[in-house]
Amino acid sequence: MARDDFVLTCPAPLGRSSTVQIAHGGGGRLMRGLIEQIFLPAFDGGALGSRHDSAVLELGGARLAFTTDGYVVDPLFFPGGDIGTLAVYGTVNDLAMAGARPAFLSVGFILEEGLPLDDLRRIVSSMRAAAADAGVELVTGDTKVVGRGKADRCFVSTSGVGLVPAGVEIAPACVRPGDAVLLSGDVGRHGIAVLSVREGLQFETEIESDCAPLAALVETLLREGVRVHCLRDLTRGGLASALNEIAADARLGIELEERAVPVTDAVLGACELLGLDPLYVANEGRFTAFVPEDDAERALAIMQSHAIARGAVRIGRVVDAHGVVVLRTRLGGRRQLDLLSGEQLPRIC
Amino acid sequence: MARDDFVLTCPAPLGRSSTVQIAHGGGGRLMRGLIEQIFLPAFDGGALGSRHDSAVLELGGARLAFTTDGYVVDPLFFPGGDIGTLAVYGTVNDLAMAGARPAFLSVGFILEEGLPLDDLRRIVSSMRAAAADAGVELVTGDTKVVGRGKADRCFVSTSGVGLVPAGVEIAPACVRPGDAVLLSGDVGRHGIAVLSVREGLQFETEIESDCAPLAALVETLLREGVRVHCLRDLTRGGLASALNEIAADARLGIELEERAVPVTDAVLGACELLGLDPLYVANEGRFTAFVPEDDAERALAIMQSHAIARGAVRIGRVVDAHGVVVLRTRLGGRRQLDLLSGEQLPRIC
Repeated sequence: MARDDFVLTCPAPLGRSSTVQIAHGGGGRLMRGLIEQIFLPAFDGGALGSRHDSAVLELGGARLAFTTDGYVVDPLFFPGGDIGTLAVYGTVNDLAMAGARPAFLSVGFILEEGLPLDDLRRIVSSMRAAAADAGVELVTGDTKVVGRGKADRCFVSTSGVGLVPAGVEIAPACVRPGDAVLLSGDVGRHGIAVLSVREGLQFETEIESDCAPLAALVETLLREGVRVHCLRDLTRGGLASALNEIAADARLGIELEERAVPVTDAVLGACELLGLDPLYVANEGRFTAFVPEDDAERALAIMQSHAIARGAVRIGRVVDAHGVVVLRTRLGGRRQLDLLSGEQLPRIC
Repeated sequence: MARDDFVLTCPAPLGRSSTVQIAHGGGGRLMRGLIEQIFLPAFDGGALGSRHDSAVLELGGARLAFTTDGYVVDPLFFPGGDIGTLAVYGTVNDLAMAGARPAFLSVGFILEEGLPLDDLRRIVSSMRAAAADAGVELVTGDTKVVGRGKADRCFVSTSGVGLVPAGVEIAPACVRPGDAVLLSGDVGRHGIAVLSVREGLQFETEIESDCAPLAALVETLLREGVRVHCLRDLTRGGLASALNEIAADARLGIELEERAVPVTDAVLGACELLGLDPLYVANEGRFTAFVPEDDAERALAIMQSHAIARGAVRIGRVVDAHGVVVLRTRLGGRRQLDLLSGEQLPRIC
């Protein structure tokens, strides 16, 4: 499907099935359909309508960011982290992506009867360490226990509240044609780390999740006066899905240079083996930043000076096309990089 | 176990098992053990240490209440409500119990593959109606889908943010000896309504859940100048558990008049049949208020003038005993009303 420009996008489908499918949770087209056709009409739009990682709200004179996320990762423990690390960093990162300084987190556990208490201790201890690292306080919580076979060991929901500094406006609607698209480092490590444990795969070098807290780096970018138009962490659906969401919500196009996107040899090898495209594999400590061309070099230098974004690069630019992401391939071709319908299925499934 | 006074309370146990038990989620002693021995040490206390339904926090000059709750009710739909109604009212009520005016809610869904989309539509539509009724805005959300057998159709997590008016301090630590203990109406209807559907029981009159939003009534009490010391909604573990928690956290005793606690004949009949004590059965629209004796009559009159608390009554008073709830029975006896270890098991199980 090679297209050049101005492709009309249709409303996302909900699928033909009358029941919830795994693909409805995959961060792709079916998920967008679920949001557009079930959640948004019922919830009236409002702050939800801005469809950013966090809602930005006024309350009692303060400008707050508010976000929530559920964590259902299987396995619970993987190289480089666990469900507790993810639950803290993921929510902190969603706040950071709205330009907020994360302040408080709530934690909800849904535990399956029979979960070893030692696993729970380990998860809670990771959350504590991650919260300290990210400079947030865990202030309120809830625990529910369900019977065997009614949940998958341990689900965690975290919600977060942060403070958005005056004047900061970071959202897809702020993206402009000509903006440079920056990426904070190599992609695909988190998804492959999780998959390799789940499927019992061994690679030559162990692949560790990239999960990391992003708020301190975002704060530095803002403090140094970089005019950040939009930020997005590259979780479910990976880089390709994040760029598609932003392009659709901004009603603009993005041109992406395939050769500019860093992927480690280990991840590339694993992806080839599994039949996955690293552009769609989930990350937990990578983000993309949209900044005016004039600020791009300075933003890159700041990113590269932070431990979590040493490998930051420029990967593309925003163009005047409606909602389309075009990939300029290594071989010099052009193809539309689309939303998948759900998640990619590895060949072994 | 008849005790009079000054019983020393031991640290709550975690149980002998090395795995999570159903009773760890029942709102009783094992749950308290889980919180005291796993969550509190890791999360450092702080706002979490106050152990109220919401954390009260300062952010950007505003005084916020922040709370989270997970909903795993089975069945999803029951007389008088569904999981969506509960998820909104429950979180709104937790904010109200800290004296906050609820403002914003986040919603997280964990959906099991195969859930009928029509069920999801119905749940979302109940949430919309409940949010409108309670005057809160659903501003941000998240959805995860897990495979068949990895969850029980639909779990909902809601978190809420509200504004606490200046000067309002509502918490167990504010309870004083001599305070009157008020109850907003009859107890036990929610738990019996849910159980009757789950177990396929038919009673002569259908018992409807009491679920209702409490924030407007709390706001009126505060606006009318009632000096509210503590509030608690009577969810998991019912009235008896709520009073035990408050007594323990306030390090005071509570004397409760059994004959003063309203229970409908239908609930009483169902409880007798099932072998349950209505004082421990969950409610979703009932709360207890601790106010100085001088404000008690006025508070009761205000409560009785609200549709959701027409049957409000005085049920007891706070005494100078450490952490103990004593029940004065219908027959004139006295017995300690203890925390259960988990939830009550109906005879039919």
